[in-house]
Amino acid sequence: MKNIVIGFFISWLMIHTANGQPYSFKIIPLGVHGGSDESNLSAYMIAPIKSDHYVCLDAGTLYSGIRVAVQNKVFRGSIDSVLRTCIKGYLISHAHLDHVSGMILNSPDDTAKNIYGLPSVLNIIKDKYFTWTSWANFANEGDAPHLNKYHYTRLDTAQETAISNTEMTVSAYSLSHGTNYESTAFLVSHQNNYILYLGDTGPDSVEHSNKLQSLWQHVAPLIVSKKLKAILIEVSFPNEQPDSQLFGHLTPKWLKAELNTLGKITGKAALKNFPVVVTHIKPKGSNEMKIKKQLAAENDLKIKFIYPRQGVKLRF
Amino acid sequence: MKNIVIGFFISWLMIHTANGQPYSFKIIPLGVHGGSDESNLSAYMIAPIKSDHYVCLDAGTLYSGIRVAVQNKVFRGSIDSVLRTCIKGYLISHAHLDHVSGMILNSPDDTAKNIYGLPSVLNIIKDKYFTWTSWANFANEGDAPHLNKYHYTRLDTAQETAISNTEMTVSAYSLSHGTNYESTAFLVSHQNNYILYLGDTGPDSVEHSNKLQSLWQHVAPLIVSKKLKAILIEVSFPNEQPDSQLFGHLTPKWLKAELNTLGKITGKAALKNFPVVVTHIKPKGSNEMKIKKQLAAENDLKIKFIYPRQGVKLRF
Repeated sequence: MKNIVIGFFISWLMIHTANGQPYSFKIIPLGVHGGSDESNLSAYMIAPIKSDHYVCLDAGTLYSGIRVAVQNKVFRGSIDSVLRTCIKGYLISHAHLDHVSGMILNSPDDTAKNIYGLPSVLNIIKDKYFTWTSWANFANEGDAPHLNKYHYTRLDTAQETAISNTEMTVSAYSLSHGTNYESTAFLVSHQNNYILYLGDTGPDSVEHSNKLQSLWQHVAPLIVSKKLKAILIEVSFPNEQPDSQLFGHLTPKWLKAELNTLGKITGKAALKNFPVVVTHIKPKGSNEMKIKKQLAAENDLKIKFIYPRQGVKLRF
Repeated sequence: MKNIVIGFFISWLMIHTANGQPYSFKIIPLGVHGGSDESNLSAYMIAPIKSDHYVCLDAGTLYSGIRVAVQNKVFRGSIDSVLRTCIKGYLISHAHLDHVSGMILNSPDDTAKNIYGLPSVLNIIKDKYFTWTSWANFANEGDAPHLNKYHYTRLDTAQETAISNTEMTVSAYSLSHGTNYESTAFLVSHQNNYILYLGDTGPDSVEHSNKLQSLWQHVAPLIVSKKLKAILIEVSFPNEQPDSQLFGHLTPKWLKAELNTLGKITGKAALKNFPVVVTHIKPKGSNEMKIKKQLAAENDLKIKFIYPRQGVKLRF
C-alpha cells in the first residue's frame, strides 16, 4: 500500500510543477549560447506537453542540437526525422546569423514549413540569405527562382496567429536590439497557457526605448493569473560590460532592473519562484560563471533562474 | 646502438613522407563535411611544416573545430588564442554559408586580418553578410560604418599574391559551382612546394565549362616535378546522385573522370600514390561509406585517397 502511494506521488510529480500545477509546455533547447560556438547557438523547440508538434524559436543551431537531444533520448528516431517531422515551423526573433544559421544550412534536407516573423526580420532573410548567392532560395519570395519550400508568414504586432500544424498560437512584440535594429518577443499560447520568449534585446533605458515596458504591461496580467509559465530572456554579458558596449544586450544588472519594472506591475509576490530561463550567454572566459553568480546575488524578487542545456528537456 | 638506429629511423619517418621527401605543409581540418552539421563544415588551416602562421582555406566552422584540435593537443593554448593568433587570414573559395559561417560568427572575437578571394566572392560577403542586417560590418567596405577589422583582398586570377603575416603565397583559379556561380581553387605555395585546394565544383562536362581542364593543365607540371604535395577536392554525393541533381558538385565517378583528364596530361605514373584529400562529403544516411567504397573500387590510377578528420593534423 505504502509503495502504491509513493508510486502515485512520483507519477504526480512527473506531470506537475513545483507549484502543484500540471505542466503545460515542453522546451528542447537545441542551442543555448550567444555568439561564436557554431555547435550551440540559440534555438528552442517548444510544444504543448503532450504533443510532438513543435515550433522552433530561433534556429541558430539545428543539426548539432538535435544530435545531442537524440543521444540524450529526448527524441526517438534519427536527426533527420526530428528536423523533418517534429519541427512544424520557425519563429525567428531577428536575422542575425547566430539566430538563423541552422535553418539556412539545413534547408536542403528540411520539409515544407512556415517561417514566422515581423516583416523587417523576414525581409532580411529574404534579401540576404535565401538569395542564390549566400544560399539557394528555398523560400517563396525574393530572388527567382523560388524553390517554395519555406513560406514567409509575416506577423502583425500583438495579433494572435495560429502556428500551422501545431496546437499553438503566437503573438509577436517588437524589441529593440541596438540602434534601429528590430528584434522580437514571441508569446506562445496553448489552451490559455503561455510561454514568453524574447530574442536579443537591450534594456529600455540604454536603448532609449519603451518596448520592454510595453511588453511587461502586456504580460503582467498573465503572470498574476498564473497563465504565463516561464519567460526565456537573454543575458549576454556579465555586469563588467560597460553600457556603451552592450550592443543591444542585457547583463544580470539590467535583467534585474527590467524584472523589477515587471514586478512593480505584477506585485513582487507574483514573481516569487517565477521561472526565468537565461538564454544567449556568450561563453567567453569565465563569463558564464560570473553571470550565474551575479544573477544569484541580491535576488530580491526570488526569481527562479534556469540555465538551459543543449538537448536537455525543460517542462513548464 | 640498435636502439639509437631505430630512434633515428623513427625521427626520420616523423619528418618525411612515404616517398622519402621531407614534409612541406601541415593542414589542420577544422571542419570536413558539406551541408548541414553546423559543428563540422569546410575549413582547413594550412601552414608550412615548421611554421605556426596559418591561413584558413574556407571558414565554415571555426570555433567547434578549433575546440576539437585543442582537445587533440594539435594546438597548445585556448580556442581564442588559436583563432586570434595562429590564423593570419582567410582564403574563401565561395560565399555559400557552409563555407563562411564560422568566420562571420567568430568575427567579434577575431583579430585584424585579410579575407582573400576572387572579386565575385568577396562582393557577396560584402553585400550579404557584413551588412549590419545579417551581421555587424567588421570589414572595410560595404554598408557603413566599417569596423575595419577585416580587409577584403581581391585576387587576380592566376596571379601569385603573398599571404600577409605568413611565409606562403596563393594563386586563385576560377571554378564553376553550378550555373553562373563562381567558386575558386587556391594554389598555396611555400619555398617552391605547393598544395592545391578546390572549393565546391561540378565536373566540366556537367557544368559546360573548361575550368577544371585549365586548372589541370596548369598544375600538371607541378605534379610531374613532385612540387605539388596534395590536392584537396570535394566529393559531395555518391554515384547514385543523378547528374541533373549534382547542384555543382562531384561524385566518385566524376572525380575519377576529372583525375583521368589530369592523368592524361601528367602521365598515369605521376599520379600513383598521389595524395587526394576528399572534402565536403554530405554525411546523409550511408553516403560517407558509399563514397569511400566507390572511390576505392577500380582505382586504376592508384590515387591515395585521404579522408580528413576534424582536428586531426595532416602532413604533406
